[in-house]
Amino acid sequence: MSTVSPPAHPDPRVTAVFDDIHATRGTDYINNFWQYLAFDPDLLEETWQQVKEVMATPGELDPLTREMIYIAVSIANSCRYCIHSHTAAARAQGMSDAQYAELLKVVSLAGKTNHLLNALQVPVDEAFDADAAA
Amino acid sequence: MSTVSPPAHPDPRVTAVFDDIHATRGTDYINNFWQYLAFDPDLLEETWQQVKEVMATPGELDPLTREMIYIAVSIANSCRYCIHSHTAAARAQGMSDAQYAELLKVVSLAGKTNHLLNALQVPVDEAFDADAAA
Amino acid sequence: MSTVSPPAHPDPRVTAVFDDIHATRGTDYINNFWQYLAFDPDLLEETWQQVKEVMATPGELDPLTREMIYIAVSIANSCRYCIHSHTAAARAQGMSDAQYAELLKVVSLAGKTNHLLNALQVPVDEAFDADAAA
Amino acid sequence: MSTVSPPAHPDPRVTAVFDDIHATRGTDYINNFWQYLAFDPDLLEETWQQVKEVMATPGELDPLTREMIYIAVSIANSCRYCIHSHTAAARAQGMSDAQYAELLKVVSLAGKTNHLLNALQVPVDEAFDADAAA
Amino acid sequence: MSTVSPPAHPDPRVTAVFDDIHATRGTDYINNFWQYLAFDPDLLEETWQQVKEVMATPGELDPLTREMIYIAVSIANSCRYCIHSHTAAARAQGMSDAQYAELLKVVSLAGKTNHLLNALQVPVDEAFDADAAA
Amino acid sequence: MSTVSPPAHPDPRVTAVFDDIHATRGTDYINNFWQYLAFDPDLLEETWQQVKEVMATPGELDPLTREMIYIAVSIANSCRYCIHSHTAAARAQGMSDAQYAELLKVVSLAGKTNHLLNALQVPVDEAFDADAAA
Repeated sequence: MSTVSPPAHPDPRVTAVFDDIHATRGTDYINNFWQYLAFDPDLLEETWQQVKEVMATPGELDPLTREMIYIAVSIANSCRYCIHSHTAAARAQGMSDAQYAELLKVVSLAGKTNHLLNALQVPVDEAFDADAAA
Repeated sequence: MSTVSPPAHPDPRVTAVFDDIHATRGTDYINNFWQYLAFDPDLLEETWQQVKEVMATPGELDPLTREMIYIAVSIANSCRYCIHSHTAAARAQGMSDAQYAELLKVVSLAGKTNHLLNALQVPVDEAFDADAAA
Repeated sequence: MSTVSPPAHPDPRVTAVFDDIHATRGTDYINNFWQYLAFDPDLLEETWQQVKEVMATPGELDPLTREMIYIAVSIANSCRYCIHSHTAAARAQGMSDAQYAELLKVVSLAGKTNHLLNALQVPVDEAFDADAAA
Repeated sequence: MSTVSPPAHPDPRVTAVFDDIHATRGTDYINNFWQYLAFDPDLLEETWQQVKEVMATPGELDPLTREMIYIAVSIANSCRYCIHSHTAAARAQGMSDAQYAELLKVVSLAGKTNHLLNALQVPVDEAFDADAAA
Repeated sequence: MSTVSPPAHPDPRVTAVFDDIHATRGTDYINNFWQYLAFDPDLLEETWQQVKEVMATPGELDPLTREMIYIAVSIANSCRYCIHSHTAAARAQGMSDAQYAELLKVVSLAGKTNHLLNALQVPVDEAFDADAAA
Repeated sequence: MSTVSPPAHPDPRVTAVFDDIHATRGTDYINNFWQYLAFDPDLLEETWQQVKEVMATPGELDPLTREMIYIAVSIANSCRYCIHSHTAAARAQGMSDAQYAELLKVVSLAGKTNHLLNALQVPVDEAFDADAAA
């Protein structure tokens, strides 16, 4: 059950993106997100471009750390598909059950204190202000 | 402006927690969260106990990774105090501007695709199911 | 799977609301939201009254714009049923695939910058303050 | 700093609502929400009507319980003004510090397990289905 | 479909927690949350410990009120499993359809005014500040 | 109070983006978001590029509709800065008080029914499934 359908006859821009996904990930599998997003080639192209650049390019943080941050945001936003796809991606990057359990400890503790602090509305310490530090 | 006030005369359980915060963090500074949470010694004790155990104990993930995950959740939950305090904590753990910028790239991309996938309601790929894999 | 069941023997107030839905929408179909909400005739009545007034009465914004705004909120709140029902309603109002794709571009970009700005906690420009402008 | 200003010359519908707030609450004070919402008399009228009916009419749940539920939702939605105004309202209804602390324990534990369960995507037990039970 | 599987051979710490759930709740049934959380005995232990302490220990608020607050947070956070499990728990505590309907009136009204006030960004009244009152 | 500071000595890529903002918007004013985001020229460049493409390029939806959708998402996500900046942008696009009030009626009604439907967990009607319709 979804709000769009994968195109019956993908246009060449879709095929080009799918080819790039194959090449970048070294797999024949295209997961449902991309299959369905192909209903609009423009949206598909720019979304894949950004995901590739942020998640599949060497950078400051290692790939597993990036996947765990992605999972954390997706959990807080209650995005079912994203939680599944990025947990699978993190496992593919080598995340162990023990690392996953620790990720969940941090995420759920943050969920707890986020609620506590949203409740208390405590004034932010001056010491935390980057402008003041500048 | 807050919904509680720090206690005028902290009880001994509060003082004991503050002493443990000093010892654990190696600093004289007690940030506002703990000062205000002290309105209920029980809530203060069990919250500090958990934060200490999850964030200040050696584990599967290094301390900076844990802080970045904490930041990610706090951003998604729009918890102003938590964002400030954990960004400051991550900087204290050595987070550079370049690492922070990359964290923000992952977090904001996740924010984007979370919205896209919540909109599309794409069916989750069977390949992502841990039960099926088991 | 739901937390309530549609009433086996709807009371007359339920029937009256269903008749008004038929008349207002020009259709025989009553979607599941109203069928299940009928477990409490009072809640059904006042919810339908508000939906009818805000969504089915001529106003400042055309009906398709209103549906797109409704979809936008529902995506951000991760309300699965609402996303499906209002996307279907927008299509019934004539929303094309191209308009839907542009809606998603705005919604997902907002999702991205919402996360960026929640992270940065940038001070709000004085120029944006309606009180100052008054 | 706000997105609208209170009207310089409130129209008679605004005055009528303010009079009803005075009468219902037994106070001369009109808090900022209503002052600013008065920029649109229609929105003011129907919002006050609902708040009055749901919060200030005898019903199934006592007034303090209703305020605590209101606070819980407002914390989860990170609505700063609502958190402040309904915490003040709960205190006016007699909420003690000890009750407030217990409210926060439930809310923050829910925040924690909400994150855990959004992460795990555990299948819902058949036993919880109202349709099955019907 | 989930991100972990229940352990094929639960370790003794899991069995001990399950025994305590049986004893505390007076039932043979262990719902899926605990079955799946058992993938990490440590996370299972500390989560059950907290749930037991906050939800199953006599305190300031009666058990049904606590369940309704839990439901309210879970709705706002869009946690499907939590909504189902705590609505079932509230019914087991005696929540009637009429009480449930009133809970939904408060929760959905809070959802409405949370959106209104997040939009208007009305300044918080000084009268609501606990620090000022102190 | 923010988590970064605007760069004391902006690099040439920052200046180029600022020049493009001036040219695109026909104003000398650079609002705080861009001033602070300039701490990372890369993040500034790609964010501005996307905002410009989605919000300042002729498309399927008129500019005011796009701004109202942006506001709707920002309200639901509780992003204070975004709410202020896009409400100001919508006013600059000609949004009247009456249109703003109607936007708020739709947004707050969606907030209300999102909470109701998240609570009820009503099954999605087959009629809403795009896959079925395909």
